[in-house]
Amino acid sequence: MRLSRYFLPVLREVPKEAEIVSHRLMLRAGLIRQQASGMYSWLPLGYRVLMKVKAIIEQEQDRSGAIELLMPTLQSADLWRESGRYDAYGKEMLRIKDRNERDMLYGPTNEEMITDIFRTYVKSYKDLPLNLYHVQWKFRDEIRPRFGTMRSREFLMKDAYSFDLDEASAVKAYHRMFVAYLRTFYRLGVTAIPMRADTGPIGGDLSHEFIILADTGESAVFCHADLLEKPIPAIDTDYRGDLAPIVADWTSLYAATEEMVDMGAFEAEVPEAKRVSARGIEVGHIFYFGTKYSAPMKATVTGPDGKEVTVHMGSYGIGPTRVVPAIIEASHDEAGIIWPVSVAPFEAVVINLKSGDADSDAASEKLYGELQNAGVDALYDDTEQGAGAKFSTADLIGIPYQLIVGPRGLKSGEVEIKHRKTGERETLPVAAAVERLRGLIEPQRRNKV
Amino acid sequence: MRLSRYFLPVLREVPKEAEIVSHRLMLRAGLIRQQASGMYSWLPLGYRVLMKVKAIIEQEQDRSGAIELLMPTLQSADLWRESGRYDAYGKEMLRIKDRNERDMLYGPTNEEMITDIFRTYVKSYKDLPLNLYHVQWKFRDEIRPRFGTMRSREFLMKDAYSFDLDEASAVKAYHRMFVAYLRTFYRLGVTAIPMRADTGPIGGDLSHEFIILADTGESAVFCHADLLEKPIPAIDTDYRGDLAPIVADWTSLYAATEEMVDMGAFEAEVPEAKRVSARGIEVGHIFYFGTKYSAPMKATVTGPDGKEVTVHMGSYGIGPTRVVPAIIEASHDEAGIIWPVSVAPFEAVVINLKSGDADSDAASEKLYGELQNAGVDALYDDTEQGAGAKFSTADLIGIPYQLIVGPRGLKSGEVEIKHRKTGERETLPVAAAVERLRGLIEPQRRNKV
Repeated sequence: MRLSRYFLPVLREVPKEAEIVSHRLMLRAGLIRQQASGMYSWLPLGYRVLMKVKAIIEQEQDRSGAIELLMPTLQSADLWRESGRYDAYGKEMLRIKDRNERDMLYGPTNEEMITDIFRTYVKSYKDLPLNLYHVQWKFRDEIRPRFGTMRSREFLMKDAYSFDLDEASAVKAYHRMFVAYLRTFYRLGVTAIPMRADTGPIGGDLSHEFIILADTGESAVFCHADLLEKPIPAIDTDYRGDLAPIVADWTSLYAATEEMVDMGAFEAEVPEAKRVSARGIEVGHIFYFGTKYSAPMKATVTGPDGKEVTVHMGSYGIGPTRVVPAIIEASHDEAGIIWPVSVAPFEAVVINLKSGDADSDAASEKLYGELQNAGVDALYDDTEQGAGAKFSTADLIGIPYQLIVGPRGLKSGEVEIKHRKTGERETLPVAAAVERLRGLIEPQRRNKV
Repeated sequence: MRLSRYFLPVLREVPKEAEIVSHRLMLRAGLIRQQASGMYSWLPLGYRVLMKVKAIIEQEQDRSGAIELLMPTLQSADLWRESGRYDAYGKEMLRIKDRNERDMLYGPTNEEMITDIFRTYVKSYKDLPLNLYHVQWKFRDEIRPRFGTMRSREFLMKDAYSFDLDEASAVKAYHRMFVAYLRTFYRLGVTAIPMRADTGPIGGDLSHEFIILADTGESAVFCHADLLEKPIPAIDTDYRGDLAPIVADWTSLYAATEEMVDMGAFEAEVPEAKRVSARGIEVGHIFYFGTKYSAPMKATVTGPDGKEVTVHMGSYGIGPTRVVPAIIEASHDEAGIIWPVSVAPFEAVVINLKSGDADSDAASEKLYGELQNAGVDALYDDTEQGAGAKFSTADLIGIPYQLIVGPRGLKSGEVEIKHRKTGERETLPVAAAVERLRGLIEPQRRNKV
């Protein structure tokens, strides 16, 4: 993408209304714009990040055997009356009347609707296990929306729902999502720790939150240091095999949020040198809740013995519009965002230090074309701004690698690569730059591990 | 995808509520499910088609220079008061009050919001031309939703908005979208004819509808036969060059819907042998409307002479959730849907005639794996159903090519390929099947033309 033809409204001043660093940076870097309280547009650069996050989530859901569909944003109130949640949900549910005065609502979650789909079509235990998911906009009418898209009213959510014949199978479904979530957050470039969680208003028997560690996180977390270094299940993990050992390994070490922590247990179970007391942001939540929805909504299948069985369910959420600011909270510096390669809006930016200079233009154009041919997702700053402004924009928007091209270097046949994360700069021959960048970027895409 | 692990609820009976063939087939083939009046879930197979349609639309928008972002589904009423449409829009607008009694609405279109984004950030003529688009759910509270997703209340829409300094530049922007739409519908595998249209409630000076020809279309259309054979602008069309000749060529021949047709002109302009009187479905609509929104909403830029200029705008819509049934109306037979390769949920299906037979299973598995390695989007019917049921499902869901594998053929080292569209069958050696399929499918993807 040529910056001169792009729409990237960066702000030099720090927006006053933003309380946390990710919100400030998302506004400054032109990722989002507030349209109304708790409702945001994703501007082009932010939209690219959001779609990369969404794609990784989908790939790992698919890999685990979950199947994608798409339910509408609005729902009929009748379904929620069946589960009893229409009255129970409170003011966070946005209630709507259509032109015929029918009660509808903007879905805050989809347990009822997916259970309705399931009971319509699935009649036999032979069609189980089944895990259906979608990525759709939700609305929760928060009394105090804040922190940008970290806690917005309209937000994007990946929600998966598993259906199984009994508790033992349902726990296996839960394990598949547990492992898929470990892989998902790894690929998103963040350290996320599963922590035993309260089941809250969704209810149920078993629940883990996935917490991204970030110094500026919203809540305190307590865990064993070895969790931070634990290897992630590999790309060839057999989701049809026994995943219990992986889950047991991850849950054997102490990890709890401040709501759940028992400091006595933390100190008893974790040697002092291994105690991590940090801050974190919840980005995923998985639940097993048995027959809480299937029983009132009569979602049953015929079992192997010919008898009707009420299915066991779980639900599994990740909010992409929350993941984006969480990644920023975990990865930024004074100059701006530092995107992990796997979700960066562009993997590299060609900075033409002197647009208008024939040599600099020609070399920049050529390198930009070669990067594209090498499969690198590249931005080309071909604007007429000065070098300082170009550097500060590139730093602010967090592109992992800057390829710096200018008349002086070109005279000796050289360009520079700046690593956004470390600040390291390397000078190398023009002809070597694209291959060097490809070599740096490829492994960090994390799409083969 | 293995069908045994997929969620594909096909219906053998014909749903009574569906009046038109696409609606019947979308229900029978397990593409969609009605959740409430005019509100549909896209089941896994339908979701795949919808996403392929969406991707093609996005690719051609991007190619033309339009830039993607994403605006929220809900909007503040205040914006619509600025343009005067909040009161004018009538009952099709779904009006909502949040917990603080603020007036909101579910966006039926986004002229106001995009104009608001534009006026916030764009201040100079140097940042023009600009075309911003998004693909987002919309809601229009139709008094009589019907025909499945052809006329649903919640629907997906790609809407693009162009901003230019003056009418001449705005017409160039209009031409870019005109050409992008020709390419988009071509790649979607349908014949779509641009026809001069009434500008309707969006208002404006210049407008074309794009009409897919289908015998079962909703309205009569009249056009010159040569329009059906006219070559589509190529993939390397220079969108920064002069597109007026292409548009002039397409608009020089008579074409009009029944609302706009002047039969006298039709007969005067088109020789009798070239008169096409057919039926069609509107799937795209483009408008140039000058300063209709920019003037009341004060979207101005500083011109080259330092004076404030109100920008000229256009808007450009395609509804993917309407395109899917329109494609089916244009492409089906007694047995079911016939997908164009470019939007088929799967490009080929391996039909194992005798699941459980060791040879048939082994050969099917191998071919399925090889198809995937060859980059073919393949479904594998590994279920325990009989051959007849497998054929009828494959025909119903419209997969372009069936690769039929059974014990009898394997004894002589052979498999069969059935072409869904023509019914043609060819017998060939097992070892030649994958390459043959790849050769059939690749050109029909239309992603290189």
